[in-house]
Amino acid sequence: MAGSVYGDILKISTWGESHGEGLGVVVDGCPAGLKLSPDNIQEYMDRRRPGAIKYSTRRNEDDSIRILSGIFEGRTTGTPISMLVFNKDHRSADYSEIASYYRPGHADYTYDAKYGFRDYRGGGRSSGRETLGRVAAGAVAVKLLNELGISVRAYARSIGPIEADMADADMDYVSQSPVYMPDKEASDKAEAYLKEAAAGRDSVGGVVECVVSGLPAGIGDPVFDKFDANIAKAVMSIGAVKAVEIGDGLAASKVPGSQNNDSFCIKDGKVTKLTNHSGGVLGGISDGSDFILRAAFKPTPSIAKKQRTINKDNEEIEIEIKGRHDPVIVPRAVVVVESMTALAIADMILKRMSAEMEGVKRFYGKK
Amino acid sequence: MAGSVYGDILKISTWGESHGEGLGVVVDGCPAGLKLSPDNIQEYMDRRRPGAIKYSTRRNEDDSIRILSGIFEGRTTGTPISMLVFNKDHRSADYSEIASYYRPGHADYTYDAKYGFRDYRGGGRSSGRETLGRVAAGAVAVKLLNELGISVRAYARSIGPIEADMADADMDYVSQSPVYMPDKEASDKAEAYLKEAAAGRDSVGGVVECVVSGLPAGIGDPVFDKFDANIAKAVMSIGAVKAVEIGDGLAASKVPGSQNNDSFCIKDGKVTKLTNHSGGVLGGISDGSDFILRAAFKPTPSIAKKQRTINKDNEEIEIEIKGRHDPVIVPRAVVVVESMTALAIADMILKRMSAEMEGVKRFYGKK
Amino acid sequence: MAGSVYGDILKISTWGESHGEGLGVVVDGCPAGLKLSPDNIQEYMDRRRPGAIKYSTRRNEDDSIRILSGIFEGRTTGTPISMLVFNKDHRSADYSEIASYYRPGHADYTYDAKYGFRDYRGGGRSSGRETLGRVAAGAVAVKLLNELGISVRAYARSIGPIEADMADADMDYVSQSPVYMPDKEASDKAEAYLKEAAAGRDSVGGVVECVVSGLPAGIGDPVFDKFDANIAKAVMSIGAVKAVEIGDGLAASKVPGSQNNDSFCIKDGKVTKLTNHSGGVLGGISDGSDFILRAAFKPTPSIAKKQRTINKDNEEIEIEIKGRHDPVIVPRAVVVVESMTALAIADMILKRMSAEMEGVKRFYGKK
Amino acid sequence: MAGSVYGDILKISTWGESHGEGLGVVVDGCPAGLKLSPDNIQEYMDRRRPGAIKYSTRRNEDDSIRILSGIFEGRTTGTPISMLVFNKDHRSADYSEIASYYRPGHADYTYDAKYGFRDYRGGGRSSGRETLGRVAAGAVAVKLLNELGISVRAYARSIGPIEADMADADMDYVSQSPVYMPDKEASDKAEAYLKEAAAGRDSVGGVVECVVSGLPAGIGDPVFDKFDANIAKAVMSIGAVKAVEIGDGLAASKVPGSQNNDSFCIKDGKVTKLTNHSGGVLGGISDGSDFILRAAFKPTPSIAKKQRTINKDNEEIEIEIKGRHDPVIVPRAVVVVESMTALAIADMILKRMSAEMEGVKRFYGKK
Repeated sequence: MAGSVYGDILKISTWGESHGEGLGVVVDGCPAGLKLSPDNIQEYMDRRRPGAIKYSTRRNEDDSIRILSGIFEGRTTGTPISMLVFNKDHRSADYSEIASYYRPGHADYTYDAKYGFRDYRGGGRSSGRETLGRVAAGAVAVKLLNELGISVRAYARSIGPIEADMADADMDYVSQSPVYMPDKEASDKAEAYLKEAAAGRDSVGGVVECVVSGLPAGIGDPVFDKFDANIAKAVMSIGAVKAVEIGDGLAASKVPGSQNNDSFCIKDGKVTKLTNHSGGVLGGISDGSDFILRAAFKPTPSIAKKQRTINKDNEEIEIEIKGRHDPVIVPRAVVVVESMTALAIADMILKRMSAEMEGVKRFYGKK
Repeated sequence: MAGSVYGDILKISTWGESHGEGLGVVVDGCPAGLKLSPDNIQEYMDRRRPGAIKYSTRRNEDDSIRILSGIFEGRTTGTPISMLVFNKDHRSADYSEIASYYRPGHADYTYDAKYGFRDYRGGGRSSGRETLGRVAAGAVAVKLLNELGISVRAYARSIGPIEADMADADMDYVSQSPVYMPDKEASDKAEAYLKEAAAGRDSVGGVVECVVSGLPAGIGDPVFDKFDANIAKAVMSIGAVKAVEIGDGLAASKVPGSQNNDSFCIKDGKVTKLTNHSGGVLGGISDGSDFILRAAFKPTPSIAKKQRTINKDNEEIEIEIKGRHDPVIVPRAVVVVESMTALAIADMILKRMSAEMEGVKRFYGKK
Repeated sequence: MAGSVYGDILKISTWGESHGEGLGVVVDGCPAGLKLSPDNIQEYMDRRRPGAIKYSTRRNEDDSIRILSGIFEGRTTGTPISMLVFNKDHRSADYSEIASYYRPGHADYTYDAKYGFRDYRGGGRSSGRETLGRVAAGAVAVKLLNELGISVRAYARSIGPIEADMADADMDYVSQSPVYMPDKEASDKAEAYLKEAAAGRDSVGGVVECVVSGLPAGIGDPVFDKFDANIAKAVMSIGAVKAVEIGDGLAASKVPGSQNNDSFCIKDGKVTKLTNHSGGVLGGISDGSDFILRAAFKPTPSIAKKQRTINKDNEEIEIEIKGRHDPVIVPRAVVVVESMTALAIADMILKRMSAEMEGVKRFYGKK
Repeated sequence: MAGSVYGDILKISTWGESHGEGLGVVVDGCPAGLKLSPDNIQEYMDRRRPGAIKYSTRRNEDDSIRILSGIFEGRTTGTPISMLVFNKDHRSADYSEIASYYRPGHADYTYDAKYGFRDYRGGGRSSGRETLGRVAAGAVAVKLLNELGISVRAYARSIGPIEADMADADMDYVSQSPVYMPDKEASDKAEAYLKEAAAGRDSVGGVVECVVSGLPAGIGDPVFDKFDANIAKAVMSIGAVKAVEIGDGLAASKVPGSQNNDSFCIKDGKVTKLTNHSGGVLGGISDGSDFILRAAFKPTPSIAKKQRTINKDNEEIEIEIKGRHDPVIVPRAVVVVESMTALAIADMILKRMSAEMEGVKRFYGKK
């Protein structure tokens, strides 16, 4: 209950510090018989790797994932899947300066307030590198969802004040965009904006949007474990996220009900909706439309600009943070948003199976 | 795990349908020795009562809470606190029409998709009346937090497009405002806007803001159980919430890091921050500043205006929903946001106690 | 997490004190569409009622169960089922004496040690009356299991030193035996033994045995959530239980492996075992044979005989406990053992559904 | 929820197969600031190592533990502690025979029934080697308890029919006894008995007893999470355990209440009891006396003697299991019982901290 375990049926336990021996995750509760290879995981790991993205740190790590358990003859066995990455260059740096003060926007102060001391090497457990375990587990969840015809796709919706025009969106362009945007014009502008920020020793935030297609209606539980509530927690738990929107989100609060309600209709003999302002969820349960969420990321707190803060002796000082830092984390966060969304949904998909007696009886051959 | 249980240490279990026998909640894990009277609970119940607020349904219910267990001689005993309200006028209405089709924006369709059928009387478990159990439990959590010097205060930040000007905010005005706004001018405008919407047989959404003061630094856990992640789930689980923002929220994603970072400083010999863009949380752990969140509510889906939808035979039809309906739920939702925020925080406050050995040893008299 | 919530998918939350307003339970996670009437519950309630059994207290209560939510048109809706019984004669007695000292064998001292004070009226939450919520919820679990062809049947295996001869067992006799034994000769001896104990102002313990038939192979999880581990917790949580045995239990530790191993064989084309020393579980997973457990109950701690103890001022005193007390609780505990066993198994039956991909894909129509 | 995660606050997640890449555990929720070195863990690992005990398999593994996270400058940081052991000789053997049939007394059949197939190499996840993660985590829990003045000590109480005479018990002898018994005479007899069994190609079970001293009164929760119920689950989850007794256990069910009740008394100014039949727990809450439990282990199912069983084609066959097998697992299980007991208690010790308001307020400096 100290915070590094997530999920009910599909339960993951992540571990590891930025500059410790390594990082990893144990996935318990993955159904047996899922075809899974290290390549399935590595593909996701590579998408969050520093080197893979232009505007991110140049730390030289290949983050090769090792799967140590839970797979036999290419399939999951139903027992825990342990995956890890060993850190490579974790012993070199000098952290005496960073250990002596509290960086604005970072968790230095709050970890000290909670635990009395902290592993200050590279941010320890509060480092963005912590997402490595999320993504490895997320790759498993995505594989599971894919087998059920469900896809999860995220991209940068905005970078700082530059927003993608979704009317011009080309999903195939996302992987070519250095900022993972689906709109070339906005992507170019965002790049220019980023360069300017970096030149000014500053940083930039943005918004990641994620779309889940192929989801059956009827997923999610009433009251506290609503589909969107579970997603909100999963996504808000990603470092630097400051807002989560579902469907029209904040905009829904500004318009009248007659405009926000989505009318049900029949298309090709199937129940659907004329619009999707709700983002695919009604009363906390999926309605069969695309599920849509947006996560707003604050700008990277590590900046080279001079800043005021205090040191461990409670003296007010001025600092300039040295070293390599992403001017933006949004592009690398895209795969993390996908991962957390997939983990939350896979868990709910598995829970759904016991929701009604007809299904239970059919499963046990009593119908 | 079907969704009506919330919390880890302070665990609540709510139950009841809009038009069933009654509604209630069982609170397990409340520390023993907390002074608690039915009046403490009733005060919160009254704030969510239809009759207490001008622009809400006129259902004639006094929602008198009964406490059936867990209190002895005016104090909690450490065992479960069972509280309930009996429904009064739950047998009268004719629901045959509502049972026959799927209301846009409601959970009718998704409950049917999940369970194969639904309790269609007044929305059953998906009714706003479900929040009754949340508020009764929330009152207990607020009492617990108050004893530790922590206060939780919410109000309407906006109604439809009308936003309160926080520079003019007067917290004492909130309880006088018919829409629970802290700014008289905005409140008056909001009232006019609401009247217009009601006249047009339409409905309105809005934003609730909640401020928590007196919170010690060091609450919340790393990675998945971050302070803000837990709050996001708690608040997003309230029906009709479509977005949750922490601190500057969405706006933080638009500005540079140098502007968004809050500098630490010393004031009156204590650590604090020059600004509070973060909303009181860093790396998922409280930093000792005020915690600030906003929840965006969609407009009430029940509107009298003609709408398109489908019936249970999958035929496209037009409907006009009859009966009493709130043109806005935001004012009544204020106390629900407070309640969920308090429940989430009380749970984390109790969990914090076992975070470091010094505290554990001191507690057990070994230091 | 204060102890009154049980289960993962089928999650129950019990509440109530012996001499408070009432007692009850909220059952969340019961699949929708299960046919359930108050009579299904009342039948179980009646089996644990004092008046129903000869050698038990004569408290005049009919323990009529009320179902307040979660049922619509005779079927469960998938939302929480709230059930309660109001206490009838809860305000009369004088508890000043019992409040002043610690009864041997009771929880008086430990509740004070934990909470600083206690609800001393009739034992409060530590009273045997607490099992009321377990049995109401257990009746739901039994109904669910019955629909899947699984039956749960318990009886008294021994009363004090008198043991039933299972070679002479007649399950139809159990309900006629005043001590719920399946062997008339042993039952008669046990009655005589009980009379003698009561005459001597003393009390008696015993062993309850429970047999579960019709259980499919493959239920239960590896390592910590083994089928038998979950049952052990569920049954050991019943007040007064001091030992739990599975299959041959303790006796298995005395014989060689060649004698204890059960050989697999084929009977009527189906896999079965030549013997069932294991009690239906191998490696923590059900093997398709009958599941067999025994729970040993200590003698009722409330006895009229003079006893030594201490009072709240830590003075050593002698006491004679007055009032009505069961000389034996074993017969009334039979239905409680059935209930806890059924609750544990129903939860595991529902969890099993997501154990392998073939089943998941079949459920979602992808196979 | 697939069974390899244990605990609420101190939560562990074990992983690994007998003949996979390795085995390990992630411990989340250990309070920060606990002094912990690899030696603290290795000492426990060595006690369960095959080579350390005379009557156990001769697999050549040193089981060197590696700690990969959660420790900084010799102390726990409050973040997950990941520990692992790499398997050394995991690729060599031929398992085609074992893959083809179901060994009596093993989990081969039940894993197939559950998952559709199994990792048959050395028993996979159902191997006794799975306890490695339990013991590594258990060593952390023991360290935590020791800092609070609580000790956990287990030993073999009986081997097959040979029982230690506790009147002659010498706890210092346990580590010298090849069967971990505290009574030299019984130990010698047990050795002779074991030799005979091994010569007859058979195996032997036994009973492990565990005593916890220094436990404060007031640990454990009412109703479902009783101290003894949690221990029962933890210990019953160890492979081959068929019975768990607390205090006098089964024997308590045979004697009258006047004999079984423990009278409270005052000794050296402190509350204690004249006897300890209850084994240190009353109403599910610790009473400050020694906590005593016994776990009965069935004989090792792997025996060289000819046995009847079936193969995967459901044909009845006769088998002789080859290879190295412990004729008894009891001596090696001693440290596993200690570990599970310590994990269960440490979790409850941490939970206890939030049980009453006085303690909560004192912790937060409000008293």
